[in-house]
Amino acid sequence: MTMQYGPSYVRQIAPYVAGKPISEVAREFGLDEARIVKLASNENPLGMPESAKAAMARAAAELGRYPDANAFELKAALAVRYGVPAEWITLGNGSNDILEIAAHAFVEKAQSVVYSQYSFAVYALATQGLGARAIVVPAVRHGHDLDAMLAAIEDDTRLLFIANPNNPTGTFIEGPALEAFLEKVPRRVVVVLDEAYTEYLPAELRYDSIAWVRRYPNLVVSRTFSKAFGLAGLRVGFAIAQPELTDLLNRLRQPFNVNTMAQAAAIAALGDTAFLEKTAALNTQGYRRLTQAFDKLGLEYVPSFGNFVLVRVGNDDGAGERVNLALLRQGVIVRPVGNYGLPQWLRVTIGLPEENEAFVTALEQALAQA
Amino acid sequence: MTMQYGPSYVRQIAPYVAGKPISEVAREFGLDEARIVKLASNENPLGMPESAKAAMARAAAELGRYPDANAFELKAALAVRYGVPAEWITLGNGSNDILEIAAHAFVEKAQSVVYSQYSFAVYALATQGLGARAIVVPAVRHGHDLDAMLAAIEDDTRLLFIANPNNPTGTFIEGPALEAFLEKVPRRVVVVLDEAYTEYLPAELRYDSIAWVRRYPNLVVSRTFSKAFGLAGLRVGFAIAQPELTDLLNRLRQPFNVNTMAQAAAIAALGDTAFLEKTAALNTQGYRRLTQAFDKLGLEYVPSFGNFVLVRVGNDDGAGERVNLALLRQGVIVRPVGNYGLPQWLRVTIGLPEENEAFVTALEQALAQA
Repeated sequence: MTMQYGPSYVRQIAPYVAGKPISEVAREFGLDEARIVKLASNENPLGMPESAKAAMARAAAELGRYPDANAFELKAALAVRYGVPAEWITLGNGSNDILEIAAHAFVEKAQSVVYSQYSFAVYALATQGLGARAIVVPAVRHGHDLDAMLAAIEDDTRLLFIANPNNPTGTFIEGPALEAFLEKVPRRVVVVLDEAYTEYLPAELRYDSIAWVRRYPNLVVSRTFSKAFGLAGLRVGFAIAQPELTDLLNRLRQPFNVNTMAQAAAIAALGDTAFLEKTAALNTQGYRRLTQAFDKLGLEYVPSFGNFVLVRVGNDDGAGERVNLALLRQGVIVRPVGNYGLPQWLRVTIGLPEENEAFVTALEQALAQA
Repeated sequence: MTMQYGPSYVRQIAPYVAGKPISEVAREFGLDEARIVKLASNENPLGMPESAKAAMARAAAELGRYPDANAFELKAALAVRYGVPAEWITLGNGSNDILEIAAHAFVEKAQSVVYSQYSFAVYALATQGLGARAIVVPAVRHGHDLDAMLAAIEDDTRLLFIANPNNPTGTFIEGPALEAFLEKVPRRVVVVLDEAYTEYLPAELRYDSIAWVRRYPNLVVSRTFSKAFGLAGLRVGFAIAQPELTDLLNRLRQPFNVNTMAQAAAIAALGDTAFLEKTAALNTQGYRRLTQAFDKLGLEYVPSFGNFVLVRVGNDDGAGERVNLALLRQGVIVRPVGNYGLPQWLRVTIGLPEENEAFVTALEQALAQA
């Protein structure tokens, strides 16, 4: 008889599928690493800001020491930037860590968690990892159906995830609609509002979610340094919530979850408005280029408010994998989203102008082959 | 009525108490940071190896990218060094992460976890965070009582933690005794053998725990780069176990838990045997100096096999805090261990020769005042 270890809900988890690293694609397809274009993980094509590199160099002397478990300086910088006390902030090893900690802090086994179809994969993973019950609400036009999500809340629901803009679809809920929703969610249900892509929003669509945190004791706003701030490789995310929720999150947070380099780099990146502006401008320009190419190729895409576009590359359920493979052979890495239930689609990150061109050329070729 | 968020077991967690960072002590006591001696967190007083710094510099260009979620190169290096397939390795954001993941992977709410009194604080935190039941076995001479731990296993026990050498007491179980214990533990109970300090053992006390992993399907060996390898600020730990347990650990692991810099630095540190030898020699020398001083001062201490010593600084339960405060005022940070139920003791990390001297001088002064 084979011994079975672990709870059945852990044994049933399908592990997260990450974007293929450049080195892996090079090994697998016999390609030169330097010629590979990776538009698979919604990273900032500018890399990390120079200001953050300089801050890291200063922090390097201290790496034999444990990080500051309370991240005094980074929290102080975040507190100033977002206008909240440091006691309202929880740091995460990327916002993935925030999402996991929130699930563990607010939900017990067998209680339920509400999230939308086609929303970020970690919501499902965090729910499964607890043996909690997922209530997955069908999407409308690839985005959140807020009325249906409200109606889906049950007595044992403890947590609700919303991504705005949403990943992997790029959809966006405007501020007033979202606030009306928050007003209606029962206060006993914690809402995690995942704003990983909020820095890409144009000025006219921005809303003040931090003001909502002041108003709603059940709201946790989650942000990341992995996208517009350019620090994906260093792992820094954070949550802003009132002290009662923040206190619970910090009880479950691993004390040294954010490393020394990451703390130093995040402080620098937070203040680097020139880098953020350059990032947003590059993204706007790249979005135009990609969607223009999709229009020309007659490909359906979901209008996106993030740094990526979800595009339909065929009408059969093998299309995503087939076109993805044809792109990989040409050294272009994008993200297939069959695991999201979108087998006809690919998610492509908006890159540098030359990366976007390389992708468009490779896509034309891939479609011609298919 | 105030809303109560989160399971009651989460609300009852007392957060981990980290060593005070140098900057915090400087702020609090009005001291010059440069003159503060920190011997509080069992860090390597040599800092990080130069080889790791060079590797980090090479990795810096890639920090806008997500880390390699599967850590291909680091796992390959670990596989060679420890003679196991890469499929037997799980990476953690420090070994703290390994310990937390193991608890979540193998234990459900209300099941029990066995560990020793005076063993590492994270065992208790990980158990509480699950709403699991802790079976804390009384220590013998500040160390693990293996017979009592075996007898303490109940039907619903799923996990047992052993630290060898143990932190914060420094005690050590010799190889044959530990192996005899593993042979007797029921196979349905997963044993996490936490060897964070194993690199400090003299050659004659080393044992081959990796060979035990091959023999026992229920054994997880946990190691860290935060101590002898000098990378505490970067956060890298790892577990070695057979594929069935490793697969479960990896289902719960956050995909990007180990950041890019940490992966690069760990590969370099792993191969830097000269640094490890220098670290061990410095530790042996410092251990002699500290215990000689304790003998001279007539202070009881627990013979230690790690890079720290637990010393009794008084016979009343206020002694630890009182002497700690007197040390802090002189700019010397050590670790009070009242939270471990050892209020008469302090844990001091073995530092550089000049740091050890500064501590001894400050301790003499602190005891004279007390």
